Amino acid sequence: MSRPWNFSAGPAALPEVVLQEISSEMLDWHGKGISVMEMSHRSDEFYEICNEAEYNLRELLSISEDYSVLFMQGGGIGQNAILPMNLIAGKNNSNKADFIITGYWSNLSYKEAKRYGDIHIAASNNAYSKIDNKEQKPWTWIPDERNWNLRKDASYLHICSNETIDGVEFSKIPNLSNFGLLDTTLVMDASSNFLSVSLEMNKLGAVFATAQKNAGSAGVTIVIVRKDLIGKALPICPSVFDYLNVSVNHSCYNTPPTFSIYVSGLIFKWIKKSGGIKFMEINNKVKSSLIYDYIDSTSFYENYVCKSVRSRMNIPFFLKNHSLNKIFLEKAKLEGLIQLKGHKSVGGIRASLYNAMQLEGVQALVTYMKDFERLYG
Amino acid sequence: MSRPWNFSAGPAALPEVVLQEISSEMLDWHGKGISVMEMSHRSDEFYEICNEAEYNLRELLSISEDYSVLFMQGGGIGQNAILPMNLIAGKNNSNKADFIITGYWSNLSYKEAKRYGDIHIAASNNAYSKIDNKEQKPWTWIPDERNWNLRKDASYLHICSNETIDGVEFSKIPNLSNFGLLDTTLVMDASSNFLSVSLEMNKLGAVFATAQKNAGSAGVTIVIVRKDLIGKALPICPSVFDYLNVSVNHSCYNTPPTFSIYVSGLIFKWIKKSGGIKFMEINNKVKSSLIYDYIDSTSFYENYVCKSVRSRMNIPFFLKNHSLNKIFLEKAKLEGLIQLKGHKSVGGIRASLYNAMQLEGVQALVTYMKDFERLYG
Repeated sequence: MSRPWNFSAGPAALPEVVLQEISSEMLDWHGKGISVMEMSHRSDEFYEICNEAEYNLRELLSISEDYSVLFMQGGGIGQNAILPMNLIAGKNNSNKADFIITGYWSNLSYKEAKRYGDIHIAASNNAYSKIDNKEQKPWTWIPDERNWNLRKDASYLHICSNETIDGVEFSKIPNLSNFGLLDTTLVMDASSNFLSVSLEMNKLGAVFATAQKNAGSAGVTIVIVRKDLIGKALPICPSVFDYLNVSVNHSCYNTPPTFSIYVSGLIFKWIKKSGGIKFMEINNKVKSSLIYDYIDSTSFYENYVCKSVRSRMNIPFFLKNHSLNKIFLEKAKLEGLIQLKGHKSVGGIRASLYNAMQLEGVQALVTYMKDFERLYG
Repeated sequence: MSRPWNFSAGPAALPEVVLQEISSEMLDWHGKGISVMEMSHRSDEFYEICNEAEYNLRELLSISEDYSVLFMQGGGIGQNAILPMNLIAGKNNSNKADFIITGYWSNLSYKEAKRYGDIHIAASNNAYSKIDNKEQKPWTWIPDERNWNLRKDASYLHICSNETIDGVEFSKIPNLSNFGLLDTTLVMDASSNFLSVSLEMNKLGAVFATAQKNAGSAGVTIVIVRKDLIGKALPICPSVFDYLNVSVNHSCYNTPPTFSIYVSGLIFKWIKKSGGIKFMEINNKVKSSLIYDYIDSTSFYENYVCKSVRSRMNIPFFLKNHSLNKIFLEKAKLEGLIQLKGHKSVGGIRASLYNAMQLEGVQALVTYMKDFERLYG
């Protein structure tokens, strides 16, 4: 069977050349006669794989030696607990953190963090708002920075750079120095737009991202954290999730998810070969514009997100006649356009356009949308 | 290159037929046109994979519906924290647990558990002992059950069924009812002998095992826990590691390590096809006896472990002339016998003989040991 266009929100499509490479060296990695899965994590071979992955990631995102790069387990929801356990005591043991709520994921992070300290919502989009004379529904916009109610004694401010479910994305990373908060750490859940756009690390204290969207396969979570923030974990933090242990041991404090790290490393190399983050950034803009432009040109489809913060990665949309959603999805599958179903909390359709989604796939989706409209419009 | 005999303690050798299957369906799983890595964890396809893995594991180990089977992240060291967070409040919120120390791993579990409650060493082998008129070094024997100092109000008793580093293995699972402790839960870290031997689940409240020894690839940890013990997690337990969340959501509370679960599922099928746990049990006895019998027949090699508790999985041994260890390892590698180096805390040689290690591999090692002795003895 020829491979379909896979719009899954994650675990998501991977580049075919990378899958071919994984397949071809499954029984014999680089002439060593064994699979990557069969290597001790203390072996020279795995050290080479892990080290090269970190090196290439640092190069792709221009990550300086002031930051540690950690390959961890537990996923994004795991980090919702692990990050506070590590960083919330950072500012004079205040155990305070502020959150900007922009959708499902930042809201979930907020709820989990409440187990570990005094957590405060500094701004939220869970309300209607008038933006550019248009009424925006809850979860479809980002609160204006000028209205953020930040606390000076918070150890960090948490944002989610891209809301996978709601399709809301920060167009740029906020600058906490604008608030007179030079010593407050900005932390960011970048799970669903990591490696799709360049990262202004100088504005950030910590970033985490699960791999199964833009950076590999499920099972590994990438954490980039400024070294001076490490070493203040709460006593109840499990040792495997203490950033200090992971950092000092180069992600091998315990047995890491070795195969997932290998897959991520191949993805990093693939991005480099493809033209780096700059190419991905431009390509993702082009890909998402194809869909948004078409949606905006017709009244048959709708996307509710405020135009200035529309996600380039995840596009939730609806057929104005909601009763057609189901048949849209069924016919799409027959055309080789798969995993387009919207998240259950939102409904409708969702097209996820991560780096591995080719322009041709997006063109095929737009063509299908047009054809469907002609038939049912 | 032909595949070498891989004696790694973990991540360890996998059956060649399983690796071939993984390789062949890397780009197209069962005619769906996508890789397992590219499937949403909410898709019917992944549900089938995960469900089948659980079904086969239950069948292999005769696990009743009284127990939940969980596929988790964080590894064995992760469970050292996760298990206490879930089970230590079990008996009237006593927050007490007892430990039997038999080596490196149970000792590490003990240290980690101390973060979460009142932890007590009920017995330890960290001392010399006279057994059958022979003096045993520390870490080479298992304390006699009759001398265990157990607390009646402990929520659970922790043991490690097989010490991967020290090569000490329980020959049978202790029966807490012998101590009048019918309502105390026995929990067992079975990471390195899981699926090598049948499991008396009726004696156990919970078992955990990392997959990268006998049950697949690194990145997934299998937890089997009696359902009535679930639901009493400490408030500081991260939601992804709360057994209740994982159980209710069939291991998909968050995105699980999908590919690792798929690999484990293939291993379970391979064990079934190979003759089930009974075949593995017999085969592992035969394999390990080949090495122990040879070591015992000569004074050139030494194994310090008390004969009645020698591990069938991990055999640490030494050349009596320690200066020969290095050349033994170097020459072994040239003969295609790899990853034989002992753990750094013990030194010497370690041969790990998990299920995927074939009898031919063990015979090749014994032949090499004999040849080496002839040359250097």
